[in-house]
Amino acid sequence: MTEHTRLSLDEAWQLGIDVLEHHGFSADHAAAITRSVVAAQRDECHSHGLYRLLDCVRTVRFGGVDPQSVPEVRDQAPGVVNVDARGGNSLLAFEKGRQPLTEKACANGVAVLAINNAFQFSALWPEVEALAEQGLVALAMTPSHAYVAPAGGHSPLLGTNPIAFAWPRPDGLPFVFDFATSAVARGEIELHRRAGNSLAEGWALDDAGQPTTDPTAALAGALLPFGGHKGTALSLMIELLAGPLIGDRMGHQTQPANASGDGKPQHGEFILALDPQAFLGADAGRHLQQAEVLFEGVMAQGARLPSQRRHRARARSQAEGVSIPKELYEELVKLKEAA
Amino acid sequence: MTEHTRLSLDEAWQLGIDVLEHHGFSADHAAAITRSVVAAQRDECHSHGLYRLLDCVRTVRFGGVDPQSVPEVRDQAPGVVNVDARGGNSLLAFEKGRQPLTEKACANGVAVLAINNAFQFSALWPEVEALAEQGLVALAMTPSHAYVAPAGGHSPLLGTNPIAFAWPRPDGLPFVFDFATSAVARGEIELHRRAGNSLAEGWALDDAGQPTTDPTAALAGALLPFGGHKGTALSLMIELLAGPLIGDRMGHQTQPANASGDGKPQHGEFILALDPQAFLGADAGRHLQQAEVLFEGVMAQGARLPSQRRHRARARSQAEGVSIPKELYEELVKLKEAA
Repeated sequence: MTEHTRLSLDEAWQLGIDVLEHHGFSADHAAAITRSVVAAQRDECHSHGLYRLLDCVRTVRFGGVDPQSVPEVRDQAPGVVNVDARGGNSLLAFEKGRQPLTEKACANGVAVLAINNAFQFSALWPEVEALAEQGLVALAMTPSHAYVAPAGGHSPLLGTNPIAFAWPRPDGLPFVFDFATSAVARGEIELHRRAGNSLAEGWALDDAGQPTTDPTAALAGALLPFGGHKGTALSLMIELLAGPLIGDRMGHQTQPANASGDGKPQHGEFILALDPQAFLGADAGRHLQQAEVLFEGVMAQGARLPSQRRHRARARSQAEGVSIPKELYEELVKLKEAA
Repeated sequence: MTEHTRLSLDEAWQLGIDVLEHHGFSADHAAAITRSVVAAQRDECHSHGLYRLLDCVRTVRFGGVDPQSVPEVRDQAPGVVNVDARGGNSLLAFEKGRQPLTEKACANGVAVLAINNAFQFSALWPEVEALAEQGLVALAMTPSHAYVAPAGGHSPLLGTNPIAFAWPRPDGLPFVFDFATSAVARGEIELHRRAGNSLAEGWALDDAGQPTTDPTAALAGALLPFGGHKGTALSLMIELLAGPLIGDRMGHQTQPANASGDGKPQHGEFILALDPQAFLGADAGRHLQQAEVLFEGVMAQGARLPSQRRHRARARSQAEGVSIPKELYEELVKLKEAA
């Protein structure tokens, strides 16, 4: 059994800040990144939690992200704000773009934040959730490195292309979902490999384009999209909106940062915000209440309402702190001292 | 073998106009509806083709649609145009909203057309395709009557909730997809029932909430969403954006029009338009060209690019006309004379 270390949310925060600042991240970047990984850890989204600090440090060492970059905000159009992350992490770019996005959405009813040239490793849900906490409806998407073959194809072409959505709720935490358009996350394949388990049917192809349940063969081949042709279509839409529409790279035009420095880890992110007040005026409250009837209908059937699991974990973490593998904790402590 | 009747596109057009005007549709409604069903027939989307004229007539007879309604256009916000279909068909409402939507998208970069109180029977792709032909990127969605259970649930709650997307291509027909978020269309279940065939696993539940491959049991039960929890999440988003956000009904709040007149067939539609010129300025052409690389990448793998099949059918129909079952043709001819 893996030994675990328990940290209060404050301790987790300080650990994140210390690791990142020690590796050259500006105070602004360190705070933006730590906010995201601590939120993920708190909600028990382990794969986007403190563990991702290892990625951040590795990517800085490979020269794949500029830890001191200052994002540049541009008022692109009445409904579009553009933030050039200038090779830095996407999270600070989001924080810089959030206020103008909100203002534009409230003024026009709808607006887009386009983030460019960003290193992106984090979950999208904290961003859309933050917008929904301000009363907005939000949709975010980003292409990632090409690990996924289109349905009916044989080789990697599409990113795992996550899409996240948030809806404000009058009396509670926003309704939020966030999923990869691949059948499973690539990390899931890696976990199966380490555990010596076979994959489910329909997750992956080998490097000859044939279906495989062998994780090692899958890592050398391609993931499949969720939902066949429909999931593929959605993934193509994400490539287009968060790629060419905002003048940035698609999944097949990026690669992870690597030791030889020829990776191209940066790409874009597309965030849409809608203001229910602008759509509905004085009736907004009454109509938002209708959405509660839908959520209750889902739960009354015993079906899972997206984000329920995260919200329960959040309450637990706020009371008891978070728990991470002792080995990870020790690795992070070493990182805040290492050169 | 079913006997077929071949019609030129002009003949198909005249047949649509005659049937609809004979049943009290205004000239504007008849033209908007016929444009959509002839486009679907031309592209060999048979289930949204001339066959749907039967639905239109049935719904008028049941009092489920006002065939003379005049849509009311309202400038809701700088980025939002609202069209109240006033109980009429959605297609004329779209035609009335299209120009203001385009103007707002070009001025702001992004805009929304919200259609309310509409009877909706048509495919969404002709609408997004029309916007992409004007150079816009477009996304449309609508909730339909609740035939679908959420993943992990047991009873109908969600509509079949189609989503359609279009992307302008510099040298050809737009890239377009349009799919229901149910595992299959309800009409597909009906076709299996008539043919005496079993359903595939994962399509439907019976009225006790248990998985079934029996089409009759499925029609009394619920369809399942495509893609499990992810498809369910997407379907919930469609309910919210094309329901409460625009002040209209969700799937579980509607029913088909019926003889006793207590159906509630009307609901809303949400259409988002984005202007690449506003996002990219002088670089728009160069970035749109990048999308072509993605489309070529899909086709180079032998995977299907959405809308390819429709475009081939279109070329065929433009040369040779369309072919519909003789029985349907005779039924339609009778309808343009019947009281």
